[in-house]
Amino acid sequence: MTGKFTETLAEFASGTLSTTLLSQSIGRLSALDWLACGLAGIDEPVAKILRSMAAAEAGVQSACMFGGGAGPPRMAALVNGTISHALDYDDTHFAHIGHPSVAVYSAAFAMGQHLNCTLPQVLEAALMGMELSVRVGLWLGRDHYQSGFHQTATAGAFGAGVAAGRLAEFNATQMAQVLGLTATRAAGLKAQFGTMGKPYNAGLAASNGVEVAQLIQAGFEANSEALEGEFGFGATHHGSANIKDALAGLGKVWMFENVSHKFHACCHGLHAALEAARELDLAAPEIAELQVRTHPRWMTVCNQTAPNTGLGAKFSYRTVLAMQALGLDTAGLRNYSDETCGRSDLQALRDRIHVKADNSLSETEAVVNLLRRDGLRRESRHDLQSVVDLDIRKNRVLDKAASLIGNNRSEIAWAMLHENVSCSAFSELFGS
Amino acid sequence: MTGKFTETLAEFASGTLSTTLLSQSIGRLSALDWLACGLAGIDEPVAKILRSMAAAEAGVQSACMFGGGAGPPRMAALVNGTISHALDYDDTHFAHIGHPSVAVYSAAFAMGQHLNCTLPQVLEAALMGMELSVRVGLWLGRDHYQSGFHQTATAGAFGAGVAAGRLAEFNATQMAQVLGLTATRAAGLKAQFGTMGKPYNAGLAASNGVEVAQLIQAGFEANSEALEGEFGFGATHHGSANIKDALAGLGKVWMFENVSHKFHACCHGLHAALEAARELDLAAPEIAELQVRTHPRWMTVCNQTAPNTGLGAKFSYRTVLAMQALGLDTAGLRNYSDETCGRSDLQALRDRIHVKADNSLSETEAVVNLLRRDGLRRESRHDLQSVVDLDIRKNRVLDKAASLIGNNRSEIAWAMLHENVSCSAFSELFGS
Repeated sequence: MTGKFTETLAEFASGTLSTTLLSQSIGRLSALDWLACGLAGIDEPVAKILRSMAAAEAGVQSACMFGGGAGPPRMAALVNGTISHALDYDDTHFAHIGHPSVAVYSAAFAMGQHLNCTLPQVLEAALMGMELSVRVGLWLGRDHYQSGFHQTATAGAFGAGVAAGRLAEFNATQMAQVLGLTATRAAGLKAQFGTMGKPYNAGLAASNGVEVAQLIQAGFEANSEALEGEFGFGATHHGSANIKDALAGLGKVWMFENVSHKFHACCHGLHAALEAARELDLAAPEIAELQVRTHPRWMTVCNQTAPNTGLGAKFSYRTVLAMQALGLDTAGLRNYSDETCGRSDLQALRDRIHVKADNSLSETEAVVNLLRRDGLRRESRHDLQSVVDLDIRKNRVLDKAASLIGNNRSEIAWAMLHENVSCSAFSELFGS
Repeated sequence: MTGKFTETLAEFASGTLSTTLLSQSIGRLSALDWLACGLAGIDEPVAKILRSMAAAEAGVQSACMFGGGAGPPRMAALVNGTISHALDYDDTHFAHIGHPSVAVYSAAFAMGQHLNCTLPQVLEAALMGMELSVRVGLWLGRDHYQSGFHQTATAGAFGAGVAAGRLAEFNATQMAQVLGLTATRAAGLKAQFGTMGKPYNAGLAASNGVEVAQLIQAGFEANSEALEGEFGFGATHHGSANIKDALAGLGKVWMFENVSHKFHACCHGLHAALEAARELDLAAPEIAELQVRTHPRWMTVCNQTAPNTGLGAKFSYRTVLAMQALGLDTAGLRNYSDETCGRSDLQALRDRIHVKADNSLSETEAVVNLLRRDGLRRESRHDLQSVVDLDIRKNRVLDKAASLIGNNRSEIAWAMLHENVSCSAFSELFGS
């Protein structure tokens, strides 16, 4: 007997899709964002290690990989999931407590290309997978995350499996089997943060999803009760099992719509301050003093005061705000360089920026106070959880993609995402 | 900084091996037992599904699979780990709380053949992996198992990784990386018991070990602190972290030596009774009445009173004891048949066998009381945890192997296990 949570998710995931236009639009933005992050990550050391493993195994070339080459779909999902998360620049969902696209799109594109699906079919399946992964993440909850699990990997695997199963046209019984079998192999610890293990966790989720769907398709019989129940994945992995919240409005409300895209190629803790400062229309010469207030947890994470390296800059309020005021695009990877840190104008400006902890703010909020040389004072506040207007969001994702992969390729991809082309045609963009 | 448990295990696993003759002998017996179980399992439905996935992916053919064909070592480990556990007839270690060989030998043979190692090198690496997997299993402990984790899969993955890393000649730093990276992907739930997911869990462990070792070999950098520590695998997975017991005598005592081999192709709950009855030298016509006393937990597991099918026979005290008394080899798979259940002499005998729960016995104990037709009464008691003399054990493993794969093949394999042949030469036996 399948439990209520599994049964409801399985029926939803195998049923008729009734998406909103908004969810479809945001799905496309996340697909573009995922593509841009994947292509931007192809030269990372972990990307090379994963591709070399794929090359050594060889096998059928039915799914393209970021950086070139193709392999079996399980392998392509592993490689693409890892590479697209290598820069930690992909989208985030706060209810999911993780990054849904890297697991789900990596699985959906690998399976979709392998099965000769169309791009609209892949986008539809991914939307289903994203929604499932957010709902499973919510069901696992903060306890699961706080105890040490990396939701991107754990909840992500269930979403990846559902997306792959949708492309294989699974019925509700098969979808329940997907959820049950995924329960025995979904894994990933936050202990890997700061190492190659973090992006690898995303690759695991994507690959697990493809493998599980392929096995169920081949007639594998698992326990479809293994997600919930006394000895299920939730109970064994410190899940909160908040079934009411996790199923709220399923089929009507698309929780996935609240996904956040990252618009700055630096530590997430800096984003709220950069967004707040953006409203102030900073111009470097005008700044007499700039004060940033942020949640205390970020003070030990991303408050390097005077870094000398591009990597250090990514963890420095003072540096990224000075970059923004000097007109250096904080969405572009190349601007975070040793050279930038060495600029005398940046260093002079940096010294006029002060950072303070503020207990009254949430982790997603920041307040920036500007004192101009002419004596004018202005304050701006931003919460990353606030809803962004679709048009604004669209322009910013397109700008980010252009900054990462060039205007030309970004426009080709964006146009294609609105057309009834094959999944293979789109996947050819994964080559470098 | 690497924690004490990881550091100690990593140094041991990469250091000079000082095994005892006993551990080497038992290692060979387990290798033969694993081979026999693997070959006996090749026609199971789950075996066919896994081999068909391997065939569909194709790729380099550097590691042989049970039932024929070869594939990349990650895939061969997944396939062989699953197939060799498909019948649940492989060895068990009570401190490990699981089946060590299916994970470790499947990884060691796949990696060993891939790296062109010799058979003695593979056996040495497997011995190290088996010992590590038992020690990690002990460290995770009963809490981990009781909460729902399948130690064969979880502890097994660490042993598999160490065996694969040993064949790649890893130093202590690399071994610590193996343990750390395995921590983010070791998984497997007992919720899959009774489904294809159970043997698949063993395949996961083997494949995870190979993948992790290959990544570390390619320069992958993981957190070597991820097994232990506040947010490590142990803490997140309800581990007991009993470091003192888990490291006791490491390097001198080979805990692996206490591994139990299964000598009856039926539910483990029946084995103690069969072993006890063996001492009574039953002869069917002499039996007036036979009484079995067993731990209460088995009464709902394997006390089918009058099964009609071969599968049912595997869960029936009365049937297997009647089989034994009639001279039907309980080590052979074919004797558990519908035909056997239909035999009138078996049914007549079965009616004279009575099963009782006895709270005073442990789960590994049974007592059998025989009343012969001539009025003689005899009692026999057996505990599966009691140490078996090496010569007796050897003869019984060889008999079992002969019963499963034929005398000829069993003898060839056993001879080869004492020679300095290539791993490839031995692996050719995996073909059906």
